[in-house]
Amino acid sequence: VSTTASFPDRFAAARAKFGPLTFGLDPSGDLLRRWGLEDTPDGVERFVDIALAASAGTVGVVKPQSAFYERHGWRGVRALDRLVSEARSDGVLVLLDVKRGDVGSTNTAYAEAYLAPGAPIAADAITVTAYLGFDALEPFFAAAATAGGAGVFVVTRSSNPDGRPLQESVGANGKAVEVALLDALAARNRAVAPDGVGPFGSVFAANHGPPSGTDLRSMGGLFLAPGLGTQGASPADVAACFASCPDRVLPSASRSLLDVGPDVGRLRDAVSDLASALNDSLRA
Amino acid sequence: VSTTASFPDRFAAARAKFGPLTFGLDPSGDLLRRWGLEDTPDGVERFVDIALAASAGTVGVVKPQSAFYERHGWRGVRALDRLVSEARSDGVLVLLDVKRGDVGSTNTAYAEAYLAPGAPIAADAITVTAYLGFDALEPFFAAAATAGGAGVFVVTRSSNPDGRPLQESVGANGKAVEVALLDALAARNRAVAPDGVGPFGSVFAANHGPPSGTDLRSMGGLFLAPGLGTQGASPADVAACFASCPDRVLPSASRSLLDVGPDVGRLRDAVSDLASALNDSLRA
Repeated sequence: VSTTASFPDRFAAARAKFGPLTFGLDPSGDLLRRWGLEDTPDGVERFVDIALAASAGTVGVVKPQSAFYERHGWRGVRALDRLVSEARSDGVLVLLDVKRGDVGSTNTAYAEAYLAPGAPIAADAITVTAYLGFDALEPFFAAAATAGGAGVFVVTRSSNPDGRPLQESVGANGKAVEVALLDALAARNRAVAPDGVGPFGSVFAANHGPPSGTDLRSMGGLFLAPGLGTQGASPADVAACFASCPDRVLPSASRSLLDVGPDVGRLRDAVSDLASALNDSLRA
Repeated sequence: VSTTASFPDRFAAARAKFGPLTFGLDPSGDLLRRWGLEDTPDGVERFVDIALAASAGTVGVVKPQSAFYERHGWRGVRALDRLVSEARSDGVLVLLDVKRGDVGSTNTAYAEAYLAPGAPIAADAITVTAYLGFDALEPFFAAAATAGGAGVFVVTRSSNPDGRPLQESVGANGKAVEVALLDALAARNRAVAPDGVGPFGSVFAANHGPPSGTDLRSMGGLFLAPGLGTQGASPADVAACFASCPDRVLPSASRSLLDVGPDVGRLRDAVSDLASALNDSLRA
């Protein structure tokens, strides 16, 4: 797959080789301690070394959660920078979980930070949030729509129960907030990839069951399904939720895999086992 | 005012001395070029030098927008770190505009990054977003509720028209999303500051007019009113929107002030003039 391929094409190639699993790389203070590392920027650097060794040649996509790097300030962000660039050099796709979202002019700056050609931390894809409006996300979409562009995953349905009241609120158009986002993403994907899979994705948790009255395949893009394991979703939940588009979902697991570390061999085995189980349950 | 005072008390003291103006410190690529600076981490460091010189002794609160530092990667975040710590050493309050928001466990990590005692970038207050649920913001609220704690401003009504469809959507309780957030903030402020002003604030734009049927004073907290000038709100709009609580609003301006730079004297004059105009229009 050429580096000018779209993010969905890059994911399809990675999935064919390693399965759909997305490995969440979240160095919480608690995890660092359990791995015998200091809860310091140096500890995060050591975490990055181990995470890179466990990921290269084992998994297709990694998903660092920015918060766990930011909690060590600029030195933590420097470790994240190294993780992103070395993982990509190793042929691993990086979906950076930053959940940025602001007004359009500010989103332009965030797109320059994480998606644009020459961005200081250039990810294959990022997560964004839409409280300030779907149309305000345009700078992210513009960066994603270019050849060799990135993927953008708009948080639509989150795994936590706290998110339901807002995400189920109903707009003036009669649609729930989460349904309106799926429809808006579908319109954009149709415009750039009428017959394929477009770069405008959705973060959509599987643990609340399949959405009623909506065929997720019709969104025309990829789904990040967070919270496998720790947050309550099983591979079977993921298969049920995305039954119409099993080849378009990136199921993500973090704590349940990292808990077997820091031994690289054991991490690789846990990642491979879960990737294989997901391959079976998400056969297209 | 002691360093163990609440954020609303620290703001009240700053307001008495300098007026309510919040000076937005947004080093966009465009602004750096107009100031004759490179659009590089070094250029951002020079911007920080000038911004600090213009702010100390001139304004009570500064509001750096994180996106414009993140677009220079970890070196940009290092410049932001210096801005935050030196501004606070100079006696200027720092409201860091990061608009973070995720599930609760991730929000704990973000609170450790920006609000906790000993945080690597410890701000007086930050902005957060609630797409993943109001209750998921609990780690931020916990950090804000401690003695000498921080302020937290939940984005409620944004200045951009794109934000209206989601923010006006109606929940199962019959309330618009933005009204539900105001009510939830009010309940939390009543619990910790029944007779005063609590630490749980709202980002609430003045340019859509006053909210119908809601007395903003009843929220019991502070308001950040973004977008003064460039985004269309005038001091009169701010006075009309917050007529019931003129002493609780932080009107923020960035581009309209920065455009007179990079001369420190001219920046100080522009800041003082606008602060004085806002003092007149927001007389309590």
